[in-house]
Amino acid sequence: MKPRPVGDLSSTRPPSKTAAMDVVATNAQVRASVAAARSRGLTIALIPTMGALHAGHISLIDAARDAFRVVSIYVNPTQFGPTEDFARYPRTIDADCAVCRQAGADLVFAPADSEIYPPGEQTRVRPGPLADTLCGPFRPGHFEGVCTVVAKLFNIVQPDVAYFGQKDAQQALIIRRMVIDLAMPLCIEICPIVREPDGLAMSSRNAFLTPEDRARAICLYRALWVARDMLTAGGSNPGRITAAMRAVIAEHADIKVDYLSIVDAANLRPMESLAGKILIAGAIRVGKTRLIDNMILELPR
Amino acid sequence: MKPRPVGDLSSTRPPSKTAAMDVVATNAQVRASVAAARSRGLTIALIPTMGALHAGHISLIDAARDAFRVVSIYVNPTQFGPTEDFARYPRTIDADCAVCRQAGADLVFAPADSEIYPPGEQTRVRPGPLADTLCGPFRPGHFEGVCTVVAKLFNIVQPDVAYFGQKDAQQALIIRRMVIDLAMPLCIEICPIVREPDGLAMSSRNAFLTPEDRARAICLYRALWVARDMLTAGGSNPGRITAAMRAVIAEHADIKVDYLSIVDAANLRPMESLAGKILIAGAIRVGKTRLIDNMILELPR
Repeated sequence: MKPRPVGDLSSTRPPSKTAAMDVVATNAQVRASVAAARSRGLTIALIPTMGALHAGHISLIDAARDAFRVVSIYVNPTQFGPTEDFARYPRTIDADCAVCRQAGADLVFAPADSEIYPPGEQTRVRPGPLADTLCGPFRPGHFEGVCTVVAKLFNIVQPDVAYFGQKDAQQALIIRRMVIDLAMPLCIEICPIVREPDGLAMSSRNAFLTPEDRARAICLYRALWVARDMLTAGGSNPGRITAAMRAVIAEHADIKVDYLSIVDAANLRPMESLAGKILIAGAIRVGKTRLIDNMILELPR
Repeated sequence: MKPRPVGDLSSTRPPSKTAAMDVVATNAQVRASVAAARSRGLTIALIPTMGALHAGHISLIDAARDAFRVVSIYVNPTQFGPTEDFARYPRTIDADCAVCRQAGADLVFAPADSEIYPPGEQTRVRPGPLADTLCGPFRPGHFEGVCTVVAKLFNIVQPDVAYFGQKDAQQALIIRRMVIDLAMPLCIEICPIVREPDGLAMSSRNAFLTPEDRARAICLYRALWVARDMLTAGGSNPGRITAAMRAVIAEHADIKVDYLSIVDAANLRPMESLAGKILIAGAIRVGKTRLIDNMILELPR
């Protein structure tokens, strides 16, 4: 099949698998709808989101086009730290449902808190050392919150496959690890980062940026390219490369770096020698807004 | 249906649901076998065990008699502390398979470590405050190990129902909580404690007891009865009751008490006033062997 442009809604699409996209709020409803779809022989795909949908999310819905597509929309409180942006995180459920409908989703699952965190709840899924690096130290508890909510969504929807974006590279790796470790009966698909025309990675948090901050935010992507260029030119000193990345960000005095790192793409560990599949990743704070981005590069061994 | 005596293998049994009981070692094999049973319309029951099967386990297999019965046998390393009895825990797989066969199990799943803990594994399921009391402080990490292995087994076998014994009262409550919290798609059945003729709760660890220790071990059950008698006679002071329990154990100078507690059976918290469903629970150490037992009592509110 010829790949279609990511996020392009105008292309020809097979007939809708259901008469109309349902929007449901309870675990029982989503299970009934999924069971009906499965009995019709359909593969079940889950696209977990926190809403505020953009072309990155649409690319995930699009990638799942052959399946019965369940999009969950839930701003998960346990993955936000006490000083983070849970309260102001964009909540645009009506617009999100319209996006899902247009993208061809079959079901939107927009649960109330009590469906996901029932009274008295206390169990958590705890990731291992993969969560201790990159974003981990800057967002204590974040990946535990992610693993917990994703495990719940997997158990509620029971999909055959779930789609996540490569923009959250560490999250993708941690979820893949969780699925293997806990023998969860589904596949994980990771889809490429979708970018604005100037290269800025699509993010629901981009909406927070003032026009000035928006213009400056691209420096993270530029820093990734600086690293990529140095690496493809044979650069082999991670410290020197991340220093060059920092210099790119430092052109903007008011942008704070959380980290700029070059790590093994398989385990997120620092590399003795730069070879094989490596992840160049960074997180910056532009005003109050935290942005992340990354690139994967395959170097000769 | 008339209830049959627990652990009685001589009673009439419906025809075996499969020609012969299979013993498998891999996740793929157990999934294939379960999928075949499900396609025949059978309910799938899982009885998770660490082997060294006794009449308590048999009562669980028996309780699941209407289902396709999968017995897992796996001595889970992560639920033992570094100073505990993992190395010497009884491993009697051949005898266990014979017990399962006689009890009418359809499938024994006896996995290698690498099936349950694949290379690089690091994810854990972490229970909440329910794990911080009773056995929790004496066995750090134990219930996290239990939740983790049980979650894995649930994901591998994907049963409709899983059976556990009331002997491990705290474990039963924590697993019920985990299933609700993570929206796991199965039911949990808790079966009554099965006891030796003198009242000692069946336990794989009873095999460790010398004849002298075996005779003394019954003091824990006697202590539970002392508490029960005081409570049913209107005793309302938990401190006085647990002191009376301690006095029973103290008759044996070489038996150490881990705890003797009277708690709310729903949340394991100490009770201001003794009313409703309460759990009397204790753990003692007889020689190197740790034994637990409990009773549930319903008091007028």
